[in-house]
Amino acid sequence: MTHPCYAVLEVVLTGPDEPLPADRVPFWAVFEHESGDVKRVPGFWDGDDRYLARFAPEDEGRWRWTTTSETAGLAGVTGEVNVAGAEPAEHGPVRVAGTFHFAHADGTPFRPVGATVYNWLHQPGERFAATVDSLTEAGFNKLRFMVFPQAGGYVEHFPELLPFERGADGRYDVTRPVVTFFRRLDAAVVLLQSRGIQADVLIYNAYDNGRFGLDGLSETEDAVYLRYLVARLSAYSNVWWSLCNEFDILDRSTARWDAAGELLAAADPHDHLRSIHNWVRLYDYNQQWVTHASLQLGQATEDFGRASLFRDAYRKPVVLDEIKYEGDVPERWGRLTGRELVHQFWIATVSGCYASHGESFVLDDGTLHIVAGGLLKGESPERLGFLRRLLDDVVGNGLDPIDNWWDASFVAGIPRQVYFQYLGRSAPASWTFRLPTAGMGIPLEVGDRFEVDVIDTWNMTIKPVGRSFELTDVRRNDAFAGGAGPVQLPEGEALTLRIRRLPQPAETDAG
Amino acid sequence: MTHPCYAVLEVVLTGPDEPLPADRVPFWAVFEHESGDVKRVPGFWDGDDRYLARFAPEDEGRWRWTTTSETAGLAGVTGEVNVAGAEPAEHGPVRVAGTFHFAHADGTPFRPVGATVYNWLHQPGERFAATVDSLTEAGFNKLRFMVFPQAGGYVEHFPELLPFERGADGRYDVTRPVVTFFRRLDAAVVLLQSRGIQADVLIYNAYDNGRFGLDGLSETEDAVYLRYLVARLSAYSNVWWSLCNEFDILDRSTARWDAAGELLAAADPHDHLRSIHNWVRLYDYNQQWVTHASLQLGQATEDFGRASLFRDAYRKPVVLDEIKYEGDVPERWGRLTGRELVHQFWIATVSGCYASHGESFVLDDGTLHIVAGGLLKGESPERLGFLRRLLDDVVGNGLDPIDNWWDASFVAGIPRQVYFQYLGRSAPASWTFRLPTAGMGIPLEVGDRFEVDVIDTWNMTIKPVGRSFELTDVRRNDAFAGGAGPVQLPEGEALTLRIRRLPQPAETDAG
Repeated sequence: MTHPCYAVLEVVLTGPDEPLPADRVPFWAVFEHESGDVKRVPGFWDGDDRYLARFAPEDEGRWRWTTTSETAGLAGVTGEVNVAGAEPAEHGPVRVAGTFHFAHADGTPFRPVGATVYNWLHQPGERFAATVDSLTEAGFNKLRFMVFPQAGGYVEHFPELLPFERGADGRYDVTRPVVTFFRRLDAAVVLLQSRGIQADVLIYNAYDNGRFGLDGLSETEDAVYLRYLVARLSAYSNVWWSLCNEFDILDRSTARWDAAGELLAAADPHDHLRSIHNWVRLYDYNQQWVTHASLQLGQATEDFGRASLFRDAYRKPVVLDEIKYEGDVPERWGRLTGRELVHQFWIATVSGCYASHGESFVLDDGTLHIVAGGLLKGESPERLGFLRRLLDDVVGNGLDPIDNWWDASFVAGIPRQVYFQYLGRSAPASWTFRLPTAGMGIPLEVGDRFEVDVIDTWNMTIKPVGRSFELTDVRRNDAFAGGAGPVQLPEGEALTLRIRRLPQPAETDAG
Repeated sequence: MTHPCYAVLEVVLTGPDEPLPADRVPFWAVFEHESGDVKRVPGFWDGDDRYLARFAPEDEGRWRWTTTSETAGLAGVTGEVNVAGAEPAEHGPVRVAGTFHFAHADGTPFRPVGATVYNWLHQPGERFAATVDSLTEAGFNKLRFMVFPQAGGYVEHFPELLPFERGADGRYDVTRPVVTFFRRLDAAVVLLQSRGIQADVLIYNAYDNGRFGLDGLSETEDAVYLRYLVARLSAYSNVWWSLCNEFDILDRSTARWDAAGELLAAADPHDHLRSIHNWVRLYDYNQQWVTHASLQLGQATEDFGRASLFRDAYRKPVVLDEIKYEGDVPERWGRLTGRELVHQFWIATVSGCYASHGESFVLDDGTLHIVAGGLLKGESPERLGFLRRLLDDVVGNGLDPIDNWWDASFVAGIPRQVYFQYLGRSAPASWTFRLPTAGMGIPLEVGDRFEVDVIDTWNMTIKPVGRSFELTDVRRNDAFAGGAGPVQLPEGEALTLRIRRLPQPAETDAG
């Protein structure tokens, strides 16, 4: 048997007819690679007498596996599998790369340009599918959605399928998951995977408002659910974990969130990305279990020089998941114009951060795209697809602010390779070549030559200036191209300059 | 014997002629209050056969003390003292208050408007004294200075008095402190105390550059020195601890700094404020041993909406110790105009943060005020004294941004009491009354009445508008005074509006 790297391998066992309660792991599958590396994967109940363990190997070669269990019949089963190279479009789970960025397990950089549809999982089939088609077409590569259904404002559709059976007392019995519910969730993650979209799974729910009662589970019940969820989903390569959207809406202690995060980190054998998203009070993203900051703060991308400070504070990737939404609701969080949202994405970009999109036009049926999905209608998605393609062209981990200590310019890039300077919503009439050096030992040299493209972020055009700029003066903080005349710009537009170093003659020869 | 609260009480013992090495505590003085509270204070060697322990009681009433020691003669000494009320100007050590602010132990708020003279301790007597006179006159209430001497740029005077004897191998022997050196340090702290200035003591030194070799002590030697320093200074009520200025200039592991901070927290019986100050890489101020963030990031106060993000990230007081300096050196960190520096202080203020001043005009002898002190000559100190007096008038913990999530205005205050809105370096021609409410349950009510002062931050004038503004419309995010005409402003000036609620008729009656 041969199996592709990063793909889900299922160990399927037959166990007791009377299902084992989900508050304990029915069996473990222990996978040993020929190198001696061992991965221990929790099994889970999948309905009737069916028990599964899912594993996604990240190393090619032979893996042998054995099961352990307190239940006779689930213990001592063995097997082996030869793992070959990955399927062409599969690069493995996304993890942190270069302190502030992301890359797949195989090293392929990943630059999130994310979307948000909280209640997507709970929509009728047609809307469920149309949402993914629309997001795919727009070019989004990450989707935030909740496992538990949403109640509250702008929600018009409430699902009947819920995650747990209820006990005789009417309370949820988290030891009896509704397998149909979780198979739907599996399928949702797989569907996103097939479209190249990361599934940013929101585990708990701050928008229940008592309607479904899923915000009323105890800490112990929450833990049972979390372990079951992780056992089911962890092997899917496109999973990201987020404990909650706007966690601080719930009246829970920080210690409870800390414990949930630590449990998540300990429980996940595939070590997916982990974070938690805030309403008005930031979580301490310096906590060890957190892999990246996933935060909102309304003003953080409204002007330059703000979002990057979170990089300084946390020294982790910063994803601004919610920078307000393009739409027309009366509330101030949901009435950005497309131009404003695209502007904020570009500010996030030259701040060395990432952002997520959401759309909040009030639809005919009274709901919003960020709640229920459907077809996108805003002006921003196309421009964000354009941004994503520009980011995809960058070779390296990602864009870092070149001189975040200082305010003279807002340039992000990969030193001596490529720089992006976003000029804001209203470019000046001309620009004179200058690069920040930041005094940090970035090895710009007199004689380095650069080409410049003028990128119109709204009209989605890329116009090369058509001449090269040669450094004549490299100082502690700045480098200049003396004698190079100014570049005339289409004044008043939201422009980005892309500045790329030309190969040296020697380098060309070497290549 | 009666002793005032918060004042230094010395237990003076005679011990071995051959001094005990300072790498162990020669004795402990255990103070027990009549309530049963116990404080354990480390003793230290003070030259010849003289051993001291210093303690500043924070509770009135009877305290009994006993010494413990492994050295006969230092053990088993007892005494008692009756502690009465504090001297009039003494409010006790400054600690964190209201999450983001500071207050003395007796509850008196403290709003730092700090100064910086790194090498002050090591200056000749005349300059040493003149520095303090000049800082006192300007109204600064905190001074950052280093225990160890500074080498490097703009340093013209190098001291002969150094903190440790040297061993036969020429290396410092940290077990033999130079008592004359540390008595000078004691006196410096006491001098600042007499002027109402907090002593922000920089424990280690990133500017030695090998000249004195004090940056070459081992981690163990550093710890010996730290415990000795803390034993000597902890009882002085005006001490703040800072592990280092620009710690990341030194090539040391984060773990070493973490350990030093934890040692400091454990060693200090008086629980003074503790932080560490960065160059280009921020420390993790979420660490438990850190009481407040003391940081620099050049652009953080150059525009609105930045510095406050550090409050969100750390949920501790934020002191921007270095926001660049007023001066005329060629380097970009030291060539602000007075207007720019005052502007940045006001931005820090309405960001709910605090800042420190420094002056970097090149003096006749080639040094700078931030290095060697002397008389201040800049334009900012007088305006910062004006700012400090305005802050001193605020009743409550301090100014918090009212709606930091949003960008519509930059207003800080104490909800429903007093608000400051800084308009930046160029005020508009008029202003219409509006207060942010932030939807956070701040209980503004229709009918609340406010008075407004127009404050010119540069010319130091306070002009009441002379009419009252009554709320007619309190919405989720804003409150308005319908019908109140706009306030005409002196356009183009760096103005702050101070908006204070007038007492309700009922409240006036009750008072």
